[in-house]
Amino acid sequence: MNSWFWFRLLHYRETLIGRDIISLARTLYSSHQYSQIESGFDKKSGHRLKREGHFGKKNRERISTYLYNMASPELEKELAPLRAAVKEFGDLIRCLKEKDAPKTDIDRAVVELKARKKKLEERELALVPKNVSFFDRLKFEDLLKQRFFYDQSFAIYGGVTGLYDFGPMGCAMKANMINLWRNHFVLEENMLEVDCSVLTPEAVLKASGHVDRFSDWMVKDLKTGECFRADHLIKNFVEKMCEDIKTPASVKEELKEVMTKLEGFNDADMHNVIMKHNIKSPMTGNELSEPIAFNLMFPTMIGPTGDFRAYLRPETAQGIFVNFKRLLEFNQGKLPFAAAQIGSGFRNEISPRQGLMRLREFTMCEIEHFVDPNNKTHPKFEQVKDYNLMLFSGCNQMDGAPAQTLSIGDAVAKKLVANETLGYYMVRVHKYLIRTGIDPKRMRFRQHLTNEMAHYACDCWDAEILTSYGWIECVGVADRACYDLLQHSKATGEKLVAEKVLSEPKIVQVIEAIPNKPVIGKIYKTEAKQIFARLEQLTPEEVEKLEKEIISAGNARIQCGDKIVELQKDYISIKRYEKKMHTEEFFPSVIEPSFGIGRIMYSVLEHSFRQREGDEQRVYFALRPVVAPIKCSILPISANSRFEPIMAAVRSELAKFSVSYKQDDSSGSLGRRYARTDAIGIPFGITVDFESESEPWTVTLRFSITMEQVRLKVSDVGKTVADLSSERTSWSEVQQIYPKFEQKSGA
Amino acid sequence: MNSWFWFRLLHYRETLIGRDIISLARTLYSSHQYSQIESGFDKKSGHRLKREGHFGKKNRERISTYLYNMASPELEKELAPLRAAVKEFGDLIRCLKEKDAPKTDIDRAVVELKARKKKLEERELALVPKNVSFFDRLKFEDLLKQRFFYDQSFAIYGGVTGLYDFGPMGCAMKANMINLWRNHFVLEENMLEVDCSVLTPEAVLKASGHVDRFSDWMVKDLKTGECFRADHLIKNFVEKMCEDIKTPASVKEELKEVMTKLEGFNDADMHNVIMKHNIKSPMTGNELSEPIAFNLMFPTMIGPTGDFRAYLRPETAQGIFVNFKRLLEFNQGKLPFAAAQIGSGFRNEISPRQGLMRLREFTMCEIEHFVDPNNKTHPKFEQVKDYNLMLFSGCNQMDGAPAQTLSIGDAVAKKLVANETLGYYMVRVHKYLIRTGIDPKRMRFRQHLTNEMAHYACDCWDAEILTSYGWIECVGVADRACYDLLQHSKATGEKLVAEKVLSEPKIVQVIEAIPNKPVIGKIYKTEAKQIFARLEQLTPEEVEKLEKEIISAGNARIQCGDKIVELQKDYISIKRYEKKMHTEEFFPSVIEPSFGIGRIMYSVLEHSFRQREGDEQRVYFALRPVVAPIKCSILPISANSRFEPIMAAVRSELAKFSVSYKQDDSSGSLGRRYARTDAIGIPFGITVDFESESEPWTVTLRFSITMEQVRLKVSDVGKTVADLSSERTSWSEVQQIYPKFEQKSGA
Repeated sequence: MNSWFWFRLLHYRETLIGRDIISLARTLYSSHQYSQIESGFDKKSGHRLKREGHFGKKNRERISTYLYNMASPELEKELAPLRAAVKEFGDLIRCLKEKDAPKTDIDRAVVELKARKKKLEERELALVPKNVSFFDRLKFEDLLKQRFFYDQSFAIYGGVTGLYDFGPMGCAMKANMINLWRNHFVLEENMLEVDCSVLTPEAVLKASGHVDRFSDWMVKDLKTGECFRADHLIKNFVEKMCEDIKTPASVKEELKEVMTKLEGFNDADMHNVIMKHNIKSPMTGNELSEPIAFNLMFPTMIGPTGDFRAYLRPETAQGIFVNFKRLLEFNQGKLPFAAAQIGSGFRNEISPRQGLMRLREFTMCEIEHFVDPNNKTHPKFEQVKDYNLMLFSGCNQMDGAPAQTLSIGDAVAKKLVANETLGYYMVRVHKYLIRTGIDPKRMRFRQHLTNEMAHYACDCWDAEILTSYGWIECVGVADRACYDLLQHSKATGEKLVAEKVLSEPKIVQVIEAIPNKPVIGKIYKTEAKQIFARLEQLTPEEVEKLEKEIISAGNARIQCGDKIVELQKDYISIKRYEKKMHTEEFFPSVIEPSFGIGRIMYSVLEHSFRQREGDEQRVYFALRPVVAPIKCSILPISANSRFEPIMAAVRSELAKFSVSYKQDDSSGSLGRRYARTDAIGIPFGITVDFESESEPWTVTLRFSITMEQVRLKVSDVGKTVADLSSERTSWSEVQQIYPKFEQKSGA
Repeated sequence: MNSWFWFRLLHYRETLIGRDIISLARTLYSSHQYSQIESGFDKKSGHRLKREGHFGKKNRERISTYLYNMASPELEKELAPLRAAVKEFGDLIRCLKEKDAPKTDIDRAVVELKARKKKLEERELALVPKNVSFFDRLKFEDLLKQRFFYDQSFAIYGGVTGLYDFGPMGCAMKANMINLWRNHFVLEENMLEVDCSVLTPEAVLKASGHVDRFSDWMVKDLKTGECFRADHLIKNFVEKMCEDIKTPASVKEELKEVMTKLEGFNDADMHNVIMKHNIKSPMTGNELSEPIAFNLMFPTMIGPTGDFRAYLRPETAQGIFVNFKRLLEFNQGKLPFAAAQIGSGFRNEISPRQGLMRLREFTMCEIEHFVDPNNKTHPKFEQVKDYNLMLFSGCNQMDGAPAQTLSIGDAVAKKLVANETLGYYMVRVHKYLIRTGIDPKRMRFRQHLTNEMAHYACDCWDAEILTSYGWIECVGVADRACYDLLQHSKATGEKLVAEKVLSEPKIVQVIEAIPNKPVIGKIYKTEAKQIFARLEQLTPEEVEKLEKEIISAGNARIQCGDKIVELQKDYISIKRYEKKMHTEEFFPSVIEPSFGIGRIMYSVLEHSFRQREGDEQRVYFALRPVVAPIKCSILPISANSRFEPIMAAVRSELAKFSVSYKQDDSSGSLGRRYARTDAIGIPFGITVDFESESEPWTVTLRFSITMEQVRLKVSDVGKTVADLSSERTSWSEVQQIYPKFEQKSGA
């Protein structure tokens, strides 16, 4: 267990004040204590697991002491001015918006707001006492590398930043997370899963806006042409300067100010900083170019001619949008429906860092839920309305207030979350993350501030997970309105719309230009037909315009193919009438939950990393069985060929239920071999010992997290481990069925 | 059932002659009759399924008649000269090889051999009587499109050839095929699965040979720059000319000759044809360029500088090779082991055609089995040695003889298949294809002729599947020797080798150049250390050379860093001694089974396509449950809300076992709704009827292929369908447990 959880408590501050602190502390403590093992995975049985190992008395004391500290007025006193500073600018922005102030003024204020928010968050994180913070990232990363969960791609060729290869453990874990996703969303929500091309023609991404807008600011060394991401360059410069004792204090202060605002900077802002502080190319000292937009898509060409420009898709979503008509038809024309896609996305980051957090090639899972824009209710919302989420709303962010726990029902009722469908997906996302093994205490939904959202989005909430890198955005849940379908319709002329039956027929006013066919036919001869067709196509507005012109000027012109045709007064008559409409066409809105699987996987691994109490060298992953790369180990108590028939029987039992296993019959002590399987997150261990040989054959089954064991018949082992692995059965249920086994020596 | 199966019988010709034809015909017929339903999927119970529906009396008669025809001497008489013509060139090539004739002569002969083989095969296929050939590709493709199994990508933007999107049905089926692959290979064979980057630096693909050799011949319109694949261009030209009544018969004859040889043509051959027949650009009539090699990899750039060239991987194999050291370490240094990868490959085909058969973006599954080149036995070979495969050896191909059925044990013993590991994988591949639903009668392994193989391969067998496009290569099983590891070692200086303990220690002769340290130290001072290091690195050959030079000239030079150092006679002494080696380093050989999932999927769909007897409009897919996109349907007998509680109970039972389902409560008749679910290959149908309401609730369960039904409790339905879907239980077993249900009306 590590300490990041306790950060979260800062956000309980307000709830804590004026309550029975000790009882609340106990509740929180005990709920955390079990969260890794129990939540979801053991929730069916409702039994509490017996604690052993990593939750010792020492930790308990440390934690309670800490909780008292957290509620102390001293701490709040320290944060209060920072909170006030945020609120000051939050209020200012509200005021500016009310007054319809110019956008640039608002943008400036937002940059300052973000800077102040960042200061507050940094202070909150810094307030965690050192003695409860013992996540050892170095040990963690060592373990991942050693056991080949993942590692840099093409390392023997010097490696490529932003590209990672998943080894046997990482690959299996990723596949399990994806299978779980497919079950949780596609299967349980009856979604239409598709699998579309990575190669995407330029025209598609032009329509979606990626060709013009999907870019980062970059500066170039004017002599060597070397490129740097502008914000990273400035950040590195500031860090270097601030470490330098020769830098005057005033400059340091100014540079620190730059750092806090950097996230909101545009090209001009960055250029100003570069010029003012005379920043040069870090390798050569050469002059730098002005910041230029660098498109983050990987370009390529399809076919041999060299003129069919294409890109690797930066997101899977567009593949769903361009298939909208087929999917709607597959769904028999009915809305709402959700389509989903699992696949690779590609972003040519200028200088990727932080491992799986920022990759050039990554696995995404995206859902596009198409819904009537006038009715975003969700049929299953009722079932989840009491589900609690930690929400960090835009309002709270602007007030410098912490996130708050709220039921999704209340959040939608209060209009904090824009609609039921959005809210329903937030709950589903939350449940998925918990099923993968994310600590619920280190998770929140943060609302995008109005200025952060894409211009077309109505509301957007990011599921953020707290890791040693800070709060990381892992899932975005956005209401994209009808932007994408509209854009592709415009670009292709294909109407990507749905049709709905009106609850009661609607009376619409129709205005038509009726041609006087004999007259037009006589004058325009073969062209007449085309003119009739054109007149039929005119929009109501065009007919109105035509009518006005004829009334005022006696004639009017219309474009007809390549020609302009002049119509005299007696060529047409204007007809007005009412029409009863029973259906209506509309562009559906899209609610989009979008998952970065690599980031979630990294977070799961970090939240599952453990060190055995009393033996901190013995590190392991307490992974949930359903995501664990390998479900069980098979260990003979000693390397002896007499065990082989029993082990063969065990293997065949496991194969019957498609349970993955790793056999370790090397000569190490049983304890050492257990440690080795724990280190790669194998949740269950089957041991064949001397007792196994009495008929009917039995083995022991060990649960790695608690290190408890039971003894069961070989013929039961396949089904039992299969049920445990799919989390249909809990460990405590297994313990109730089979006798406990106590090891003689302490392995 | 369609007729392609009967093609295969041609290959039984020799077996048929001189036997009891009728009894053999019966055996073959009955084995085919059940093969779709029974093989594997029903093998546990051993029960024969009751036939209904598509295997009617009419077909049986037609088939037996056909079998008599097949054995007729007339048919053999017709094929005999073609067989002889092939053998003539087969013998010629053998003779040329024996005489060590020039390679160009052999190549020419091979072109002719292939042409003759093609004629033989075409004749064999043409001999199938029209009345047993009723696979309707048009209806088949309509169904795939209508139900969105897959369709062209970006169709609303005009589409891109060679790119396909998989809709809900295709996507689910593909995912199931991949899961089955993972179970069948990764899990059951304990492989190390990895997941590597698609983006691949140029250096990697330079080493593997793809940058220089992975290309097709292309010609360009000299004015417009439009590109054509040279062989396709010639083929189209020939077809047009042969249809034209104005073309003289002699020219037609000549062009037909070109067609048969086209496959073996090089650039000069193709250029000659283009010049001789004055072939122009088909659109413009402009002159064409000479054939130029067009590299089939998609190029891109990594990072912003524009100088880091990369490609999208053309195969997943290279990702495994560059990770060899990590994988070997993961496997604790032990050989043999197999690594596997599932992922996308990309090939920029010049002009892709034939749907899923030739894509620009496709899913591959590849295995690299690393093994000691001196010991390619396989521990599990004994278990499969009696397994029969249809083998079309290089020898048979050169003799114009048909493929033959042989046990893999015999094939390896006869050296027909190079080694046990290769043979073991051929069996595993065969079993996998049958598990997906490929008709075993329409499958063969064809050996590459020596000239077809990559220059580094020792032996290669393609699993070919017979479809309406002819025999299609779907899996390649190749012994790649140590080519790739060696290439990457050369390119990176990283020794990609394994180490083995020698059965008895080996005495090796060591020769070393021992520096006279005081002397060298005095002369070269600070550089001395570098010289000592260099001397230590010298290979035995280099030391020998050094010794010779010093003896003959009194001094010698060695390259030392950037400098050349002169060594006098007294600077060094040469030491020779014997050393006992207990281990030995070596480059492992690689056996590579490589699967094209799209092609297999297409073949499965074609082999599973059926029309209901008596109602040929009623088409459906008889998919095996394990690959079926959706496992079952839920149909209320009529749209009535009183059924909703029972349907909810059914849904929750299915969800418990993660069984996918499709509910159809639309108003159509039950029969029509069954037909709709049959059409998308849903194997099982659950119907809620009026009888369902008596406690305990029951439903009927229908098997789509036989249309038989049983009645069972709602509480049993989840487990039953889950077991049927994973093929742990067969339909006949279910029939023995639950009472038969007879529908009143014929749905």
